[in-house]
Amino acid sequence: MTIKNDLYLKALRGEKLERPPIWLMRQAGRILPQYRAIRSSLSGFKALLHRPDLAAEVTIQPVDELDVDAAIIFSDILVIPEAMGLQYELVEKKGPRFLDTITQSSDIPKLLSGSEAAIKLNYVFEALDITKKALQQRVPLIGFSGAPWTLMAYMIEGQGSKTFSKAKKFLYQEPKASELLLEKITDTIIAYCKMKIEHGANAIQIFDSWAGMLSPQSYKKFMLKHLRRIAESITEVPVILFCKGAHHSLTALSEMDCDAIGLDWTISPENGLALTKSRKVLQGNLDPCQLYAAPEEIAKATTEMIQAFAAKHIVNLGHGVYPDTPLEGVKTFVNTVKNYKYSQ
Amino acid sequence: MTIKNDLYLKALRGEKLERPPIWLMRQAGRILPQYRAIRSSLSGFKALLHRPDLAAEVTIQPVDELDVDAAIIFSDILVIPEAMGLQYELVEKKGPRFLDTITQSSDIPKLLSGSEAAIKLNYVFEALDITKKALQQRVPLIGFSGAPWTLMAYMIEGQGSKTFSKAKKFLYQEPKASELLLEKITDTIIAYCKMKIEHGANAIQIFDSWAGMLSPQSYKKFMLKHLRRIAESITEVPVILFCKGAHHSLTALSEMDCDAIGLDWTISPENGLALTKSRKVLQGNLDPCQLYAAPEEIAKATTEMIQAFAAKHIVNLGHGVYPDTPLEGVKTFVNTVKNYKYSQ
Repeated sequence: MTIKNDLYLKALRGEKLERPPIWLMRQAGRILPQYRAIRSSLSGFKALLHRPDLAAEVTIQPVDELDVDAAIIFSDILVIPEAMGLQYELVEKKGPRFLDTITQSSDIPKLLSGSEAAIKLNYVFEALDITKKALQQRVPLIGFSGAPWTLMAYMIEGQGSKTFSKAKKFLYQEPKASELLLEKITDTIIAYCKMKIEHGANAIQIFDSWAGMLSPQSYKKFMLKHLRRIAESITEVPVILFCKGAHHSLTALSEMDCDAIGLDWTISPENGLALTKSRKVLQGNLDPCQLYAAPEEIAKATTEMIQAFAAKHIVNLGHGVYPDTPLEGVKTFVNTVKNYKYSQ
Repeated sequence: MTIKNDLYLKALRGEKLERPPIWLMRQAGRILPQYRAIRSSLSGFKALLHRPDLAAEVTIQPVDELDVDAAIIFSDILVIPEAMGLQYELVEKKGPRFLDTITQSSDIPKLLSGSEAAIKLNYVFEALDITKKALQQRVPLIGFSGAPWTLMAYMIEGQGSKTFSKAKKFLYQEPKASELLLEKITDTIIAYCKMKIEHGANAIQIFDSWAGMLSPQSYKKFMLKHLRRIAESITEVPVILFCKGAHHSLTALSEMDCDAIGLDWTISPENGLALTKSRKVLQGNLDPCQLYAAPEEIAKATTEMIQAFAAKHIVNLGHGVYPDTPLEGVKTFVNTVKNYKYSQ
């Protein structure tokens, strides 16, 4: 059975389309009343993660409510560190708190990695199975993973940070141990993504949420090779790299074997096209706060963005949608894209 | 009486030098045991701000201890919002908390602005007077101010934020009121900086710490004109614009009537030179976390940076020095620069 609305996959293949596809990062989340209802019936975010039936339900909610062109499996990037051996909790209004962290190089060899770690994430694969069945091929299903640096950053820092200076200190003080850690994380990401694909993911997006914390020199020295290996290893479905804040490395990313590059909202379309040398499909990148504006302003900014990217474009925000975004603003955004027609 | 070590001012004038000057953002702060001793004798950071004699003392400490080429007056960017009418507290380990914030457009007309606000900051000018006297013209004294957007962001948000989405929402929903607020803040910044100059500041640095939160479109629409007005209004001494995260606007900044541009650590020297078209002196931009590395690594990275910037360069970090940076790392950084010689 083929996917009914495959606009998103066509866009990833660089096909000429009537309009760009649209989905939103964090579309399965607090912007939807249906999500908040399910979430409030549970003890916490992690309880929802570990209920494949409910994870599938919230994955499909934005397809029903917003009519977006893709679903993204409801999950969390930190399931990989947990599968490798570091437990964490999600504290309401504070974010993740790891019970154990990497504090020295000798902590690294004992971490599980590759498929040995990835098989521990069976509850995610179950959520994919249930979603695929319930989604009935209406739209493609996106699988995702955190990128090596972002996962390493949490594994050392143990929580969010304004600077991630503890994790960066480890990079500067323990470059060899960092390399081993990044290798193990990368092995796990690849195994995990391949399992997601076996369970029906039609594309894989890699989130390097904290790429912007690193200098261009560090990103080049430590991170690019792992991103390259991920892009080259996942051959079954399209791969999208979204490295938030990595304006300095967009040209290098555009040389990798990925299908699309996600742009954060600090990159103008013109600059995004120039830095990636128009080699790749670009995804993004409206400022999430634009959706607080009046409907006509949202429509105007969205239309200008689509025109500026011209083609080979998947519409999204430049960051996950903020939880307090008015649903009407989100709908105006989606509907503006759905009513758009590229001039021939 | 002329300034004995005027390397920093010569660099700002674009003169050919034997080596670049160096100072560090937040050099008057927790990295120095002398600072921590004074700080621990007081009830809080604001108590120190309001003691001109002690503010002067901590301003001079890094000149004594580190032998840097410039002093920067110990103060806080949030004194301007306070002078305009919004009180704040600094909560230990949490940061600023405003008692009142701007929540609607009608809150704006009642704010003081221009010299009417700036004259309330007499304790800062007193600190400058005392510093100038005690410093005995050993090195130049830098005065500073927050930029219009960064100050507006705190005045609306009331505290730090990961997204500053409340302040950005105001920009999108109340563009006219935002414009009025930015005008009033800009008037105050200019009056305040001119008073600092009257009290002996030899250069003015403008910090737009949260520039990176805005899209290039918003930065261009709302912020560039105010930065331009500040640069054009301060004619008495050199002006340095440091807009953290504004990689998208470096070319526009380089067209302004400022003397130098500060770069954050995400801009490679090559990219900084290209984006500013080599029009300006560049200041920065070693990754603050580089100072956690071994001494030989710090020296290597510092030397590579100086060589990459080539000339018209003031050495600094790409962000304020982090409080837990080892003093030895800071000294290695400073001494590497002081021992450097540009090849002729």
